[in-house]
Amino acid sequence: MNENARSRSTPQQIAADLAARFSLTAVERDQRGGTPKPERDALRASGLLALSIPSEYGGRGATWQTTLDVVRIIAAADGSLAHVFAFHHLMLATVRLFGTEQQWGSWFEKTARHDWFWGNALNPLDDRTISRSREDWLEFSGQKSFCSGALDSEMLIASARDALTNAFLVAAVPTQRSGIAVADDWDNIGQRQTDSGTVTFERVRVDHHEVLIEPGPLSTPFACLRPLIAQLSLAHVYLGISEAAFEDARHYTLNEARPWPASKLASVGDDPYILGQYGEFWVGLEAVRTLAARAADRLDSAWARGSALSEAERGEVALATATAKVAAAQTGLVICTRMFDVAGARATHGSLRLDRYWRNLRTHTLHDPLAYKMREIGEWALKRIYPTPSFYS
Amino acid sequence: MNENARSRSTPQQIAADLAARFSLTAVERDQRGGTPKPERDALRASGLLALSIPSEYGGRGATWQTTLDVVRIIAAADGSLAHVFAFHHLMLATVRLFGTEQQWGSWFEKTARHDWFWGNALNPLDDRTISRSREDWLEFSGQKSFCSGALDSEMLIASARDALTNAFLVAAVPTQRSGIAVADDWDNIGQRQTDSGTVTFERVRVDHHEVLIEPGPLSTPFACLRPLIAQLSLAHVYLGISEAAFEDARHYTLNEARPWPASKLASVGDDPYILGQYGEFWVGLEAVRTLAARAADRLDSAWARGSALSEAERGEVALATATAKVAAAQTGLVICTRMFDVAGARATHGSLRLDRYWRNLRTHTLHDPLAYKMREIGEWALKRIYPTPSFYS
Amino acid sequence: MNENARSRSTPQQIAADLAARFSLTAVERDQRGGTPKPERDALRASGLLALSIPSEYGGRGATWQTTLDVVRIIAAADGSLAHVFAFHHLMLATVRLFGTEQQWGSWFEKTARHDWFWGNALNPLDDRTISRSREDWLEFSGQKSFCSGALDSEMLIASARDALTNAFLVAAVPTQRSGIAVADDWDNIGQRQTDSGTVTFERVRVDHHEVLIEPGPLSTPFACLRPLIAQLSLAHVYLGISEAAFEDARHYTLNEARPWPASKLASVGDDPYILGQYGEFWVGLEAVRTLAARAADRLDSAWARGSALSEAERGEVALATATAKVAAAQTGLVICTRMFDVAGARATHGSLRLDRYWRNLRTHTLHDPLAYKMREIGEWALKRIYPTPSFYS
Amino acid sequence: MNENARSRSTPQQIAADLAARFSLTAVERDQRGGTPKPERDALRASGLLALSIPSEYGGRGATWQTTLDVVRIIAAADGSLAHVFAFHHLMLATVRLFGTEQQWGSWFEKTARHDWFWGNALNPLDDRTISRSREDWLEFSGQKSFCSGALDSEMLIASARDALTNAFLVAAVPTQRSGIAVADDWDNIGQRQTDSGTVTFERVRVDHHEVLIEPGPLSTPFACLRPLIAQLSLAHVYLGISEAAFEDARHYTLNEARPWPASKLASVGDDPYILGQYGEFWVGLEAVRTLAARAADRLDSAWARGSALSEAERGEVALATATAKVAAAQTGLVICTRMFDVAGARATHGSLRLDRYWRNLRTHTLHDPLAYKMREIGEWALKRIYPTPSFYS
Repeated sequence: MNENARSRSTPQQIAADLAARFSLTAVERDQRGGTPKPERDALRASGLLALSIPSEYGGRGATWQTTLDVVRIIAAADGSLAHVFAFHHLMLATVRLFGTEQQWGSWFEKTARHDWFWGNALNPLDDRTISRSREDWLEFSGQKSFCSGALDSEMLIASARDALTNAFLVAAVPTQRSGIAVADDWDNIGQRQTDSGTVTFERVRVDHHEVLIEPGPLSTPFACLRPLIAQLSLAHVYLGISEAAFEDARHYTLNEARPWPASKLASVGDDPYILGQYGEFWVGLEAVRTLAARAADRLDSAWARGSALSEAERGEVALATATAKVAAAQTGLVICTRMFDVAGARATHGSLRLDRYWRNLRTHTLHDPLAYKMREIGEWALKRIYPTPSFYS
Repeated sequence: MNENARSRSTPQQIAADLAARFSLTAVERDQRGGTPKPERDALRASGLLALSIPSEYGGRGATWQTTLDVVRIIAAADGSLAHVFAFHHLMLATVRLFGTEQQWGSWFEKTARHDWFWGNALNPLDDRTISRSREDWLEFSGQKSFCSGALDSEMLIASARDALTNAFLVAAVPTQRSGIAVADDWDNIGQRQTDSGTVTFERVRVDHHEVLIEPGPLSTPFACLRPLIAQLSLAHVYLGISEAAFEDARHYTLNEARPWPASKLASVGDDPYILGQYGEFWVGLEAVRTLAARAADRLDSAWARGSALSEAERGEVALATATAKVAAAQTGLVICTRMFDVAGARATHGSLRLDRYWRNLRTHTLHDPLAYKMREIGEWALKRIYPTPSFYS
Repeated sequence: MNENARSRSTPQQIAADLAARFSLTAVERDQRGGTPKPERDALRASGLLALSIPSEYGGRGATWQTTLDVVRIIAAADGSLAHVFAFHHLMLATVRLFGTEQQWGSWFEKTARHDWFWGNALNPLDDRTISRSREDWLEFSGQKSFCSGALDSEMLIASARDALTNAFLVAAVPTQRSGIAVADDWDNIGQRQTDSGTVTFERVRVDHHEVLIEPGPLSTPFACLRPLIAQLSLAHVYLGISEAAFEDARHYTLNEARPWPASKLASVGDDPYILGQYGEFWVGLEAVRTLAARAADRLDSAWARGSALSEAERGEVALATATAKVAAAQTGLVICTRMFDVAGARATHGSLRLDRYWRNLRTHTLHDPLAYKMREIGEWALKRIYPTPSFYS
Repeated sequence: MNENARSRSTPQQIAADLAARFSLTAVERDQRGGTPKPERDALRASGLLALSIPSEYGGRGATWQTTLDVVRIIAAADGSLAHVFAFHHLMLATVRLFGTEQQWGSWFEKTARHDWFWGNALNPLDDRTISRSREDWLEFSGQKSFCSGALDSEMLIASARDALTNAFLVAAVPTQRSGIAVADDWDNIGQRQTDSGTVTFERVRVDHHEVLIEPGPLSTPFACLRPLIAQLSLAHVYLGISEAAFEDARHYTLNEARPWPASKLASVGDDPYILGQYGEFWVGLEAVRTLAARAADRLDSAWARGSALSEAERGEVALATATAKVAAAQTGLVICTRMFDVAGARATHGSLRLDRYWRNLRTHTLHDPLAYKMREIGEWALKRIYPTPSFYS
């Protein structure tokens, strides 16, 4: 897409075009796994990698509401691409929230100009990567698991524990930096093209200006928006997957399913149980859509507050986000399972791979336990205690 | 409340004051049943009976969003009063939607000036009341069941079937009209002070100018907003009841419940299962709140369209309303039942009558079957068919 | 019922006759609360108070399967009477399991001969009653809450903490013993005629031969059957209540409910949603019935093992009992709530008091938290650890 | 396994040995699909293909309880093999129930002697195969879909519509008969090695003695046990799959999962939410186990009644079977989805293919709609009407 076309279309239109293209090969790529190189390049070419970058740095300056809506649209075509796309923007937000203007300004500008893709090597639960001080730089050594989108990326957000202080350090480094090896070892039942494999750091030099220490990770209420962007991205991926499952179910009910003989109906579309089931799907989806939109709206308001953001204001975003996320996960799992009850036995044909919705959602909803997200909400509901900021809350 | 105080406070503030007062006697009145005369008079005195009446007729000109929010606030204190209050405004809307400006103008003005309370005698499922043409008027004879708020009302919206044509006629008549007898025969397990009993018409004279035939019942998409106002009122009553149940549960968990010995916890507020349960309550309530607010917003937009409202625009309001209503009913029944699991056995003490939340909600959610509301939503979800307008859709 | 009639009928037949009689006044007594004196006397006269007493002591020597089936039958007519009847047999089992043959032999014989009713004053969570050693006896002083069936009983099982050792002492004492005051202070939303109020001990003399210390409370795997009998009694009360709710729903669906207009059906009995709902009720009830029967069967086998019962054998009974109980509670709450969706709005009429099923079950299912019962089952399911014996497990 | 070993082991032991062997390759075969030839031959060699054949014909004379228990054991290792094994016995039962002793005697004897495997080509919903009368025989032409186990079978149960009368004819024919072509065209998301593909009949000669017309399909209450054996087989396959999913989840929870940081627990096995989830799994499985065992027991009793079986007796088996089946399906779908919440994100690794439980169960539970099975149960629950016999009830 040339620069002109880019600027004339809304991000949602561009995303819809990409989604239509991704859909054509989604089944085949789900089977294959691995890196969706042409699709990642299409995302690069679309300009959407600069979607959340402020216009002063050459980006489209989109709100989170828009950015997450684009995530949802892509997720309806391909959960894997939606995830790495969303986390690309999360990595940009990480730089913005944990670093200085000098840091983010430069990276934003280069990202927008060169359509860079950012990958994730931050997994805070994996403590194997250690940072040691060398003369003028830091040296990262060790491994990180679940590094979605690290393969075929230009930049990485990487984390390490300081060997002496155990401090949690976050840095932005070029993926091609000497000593970084990104393994092609992701082979899971769902989200198969997220490349959420292992990154190995072998005495990787990280310069001080690449480390995000001012204000630093989760250091202020504003910096603590970072995990909320992650969580709300998940919610939008879940929603997009669920909407796609719903639409495919509709297609098969309307075009392939036959009325059950005992129903004595001429059309499966008049079956009371099938209609009731679609009603339940719809109520669930509508609830998720309104909750997700509300959370995105609150996030935008909080984002606009910048460093003035208070703990309570951040807490409100956290609650809206957690609520949207658990609702999206619960509703989605129901739809991705029950869709077959309404679509009929033929919808299990292998060539359709309609089970990928369940596999993608099931895999992705294990990012962090729903039970603890629910408890977090309960802490507020019962005791008016906001979620304690962490990389998952 | 004097005229000055009325105008200085927001409707929500006035409602909150009333709710606080109603709460004090809610338990006792739930036990007693019958007509809440002092509370109805307090509603009259509050000016809120003119809430939805346009300012040009002396009302407060509130949006539906505001009017329904007031319904919700009152419902949190007293489900019965909330219902008759909401249906009072539904009766006013009935005049507005089914009648002429000449009709509604006069009644609105008098209602605002005299703080009239309107009651319901329209039950479309009860065909026992028949209208016969007399010289210059109609004569209604027969009975109507489920006439909420008819007792102690100044005006009634009554319906009858035309003896010859079987046409469904709706009229506005003074409750004191000769031949009208409102029975004090409502004694049900919930919503005990709604006076949803029987009205008997014995050769009641109804003048032609009292009959709403221009444009007439459900005659246009705009007129078909009437059942949606009814349904969305139900949703807000359900929500208010659920919120009150939730708050009372919180009160008992925090102040009365003790940690279960096997939990080995010092405080019940740290119990993982109780926190998880509150999390689920919260997610459910938040979904209902956002869905109900969205539906009210759509209703206001549709209301503003007036007679230009299209079938599709009306259909969108119908969908949003149905979705909010089933979500409110489902979530509410869970909360009103499960609240005891978190509030503890002491919360079953008879003096608290905390079972009234379940009894009120359970009774009210039988207004029309949830299963058919769900099917209606399913017709849209699967086939993109809007709900067919009726007095319940 | 005279001695002859007693012996010719099966316990279930006798129970069914009683249940039919209790049903006639169940609504009125639910409203009134208080002690169901005539019904308790009818239970005395029926001979069923000796149901679980071995025949060598003049009892009917029924199995637990039979005794609990009788509990279920009575519960379908009256949850309160079922509870105090079940707990009467639990008190007899307490003597049997915690005491010596000399102790139980005498009490069994007197109970069977005089149709004594035993009440409960053991609440292990209420530590307010203290035992002090006097010359040749113990002296109990303090209070106990939730003393179901203490009013109008001949004997009590009471517990106290030893003032010096804090040991948990359990004794059998005549209710009329000087210093015992049984308050008529139970007024809760459900199980309103269980008299689960307060017993006050004011320097009550308890002789050593009345204290159950050989083998003593929960001292052996066999003695640890006591809480399982309590739990399985609860399950059978829940089941009986649920079956009654189901049958009343059926009655109203078949005789009172009308087809919903949008269903376009002539008979409500052909409504697909109502049939589906009844199907779900049935599956739930059948599961509870088979699980409860299996647990009772295991209990009888364990009971027959006597003091040879191993921890593992006792553990199997505990698991089967816990499983039956949570299933009964969950299924019952659904049926007692959903019954109105199928029975129709008329079933909420106050004179029917059909809400009593929900109120009774909801109150009774708070005996001990379902969440912790579920965790207990989970400990087995995941780690193969049997429930740790306590008064609730 | 030689003849001696066969006879010394119980069928369950033999099945457990086979299951252990099948487990080793289940993952690889799930991926591959197609015909599990070595495993089918192992079933042949085990003697279990003669399990349900009466001993007078050389079989093991097992009850249905035993036969279905073997189905469950195999299903825990491999849902596909369990299905074709169960349906093999269903085919034998078809001959027994629809045919004459002369017919079944001979086929039973040969099946037992030669370890024949029977396949299914009866699909009553597929009317494409037509029977035409020729001189002394019938000629079948057309296709049948969903012909599980037809590939690599020695015998087929095939159905056709009579070209003139439209009568539904069922016949037993050698799979190798000229004109029969069994396609290798089953490629679905689950139950991938059931070979449930297409059989084509091209002018296939069917002799009269091969047609089961005395007493004929679904002709008597006894003959109507056939669909119940099918349905109860499904229930046992569902149960076996669910039990395997449960055990694999346990394995991963105990050996691979790590406590969530926010839980502040040292061991994931102490996590309250994980324990609660296992408790729910267990209650569900126990309910299914008891319901399935009860249905199998009723089936054996009905089977023993032979042609004396009444409609009501058959109806009781139908109810117990339907109840077990819907419970098995519902519980199984929950376990196969929720297992990952307790097993942790690592359990999604592709090499484990733990999603196959969900894929197998989801595919298999679409055999006939659960909603209509529930309605059928509801017809009994509400109106005391037994399920109307059909090939699915």
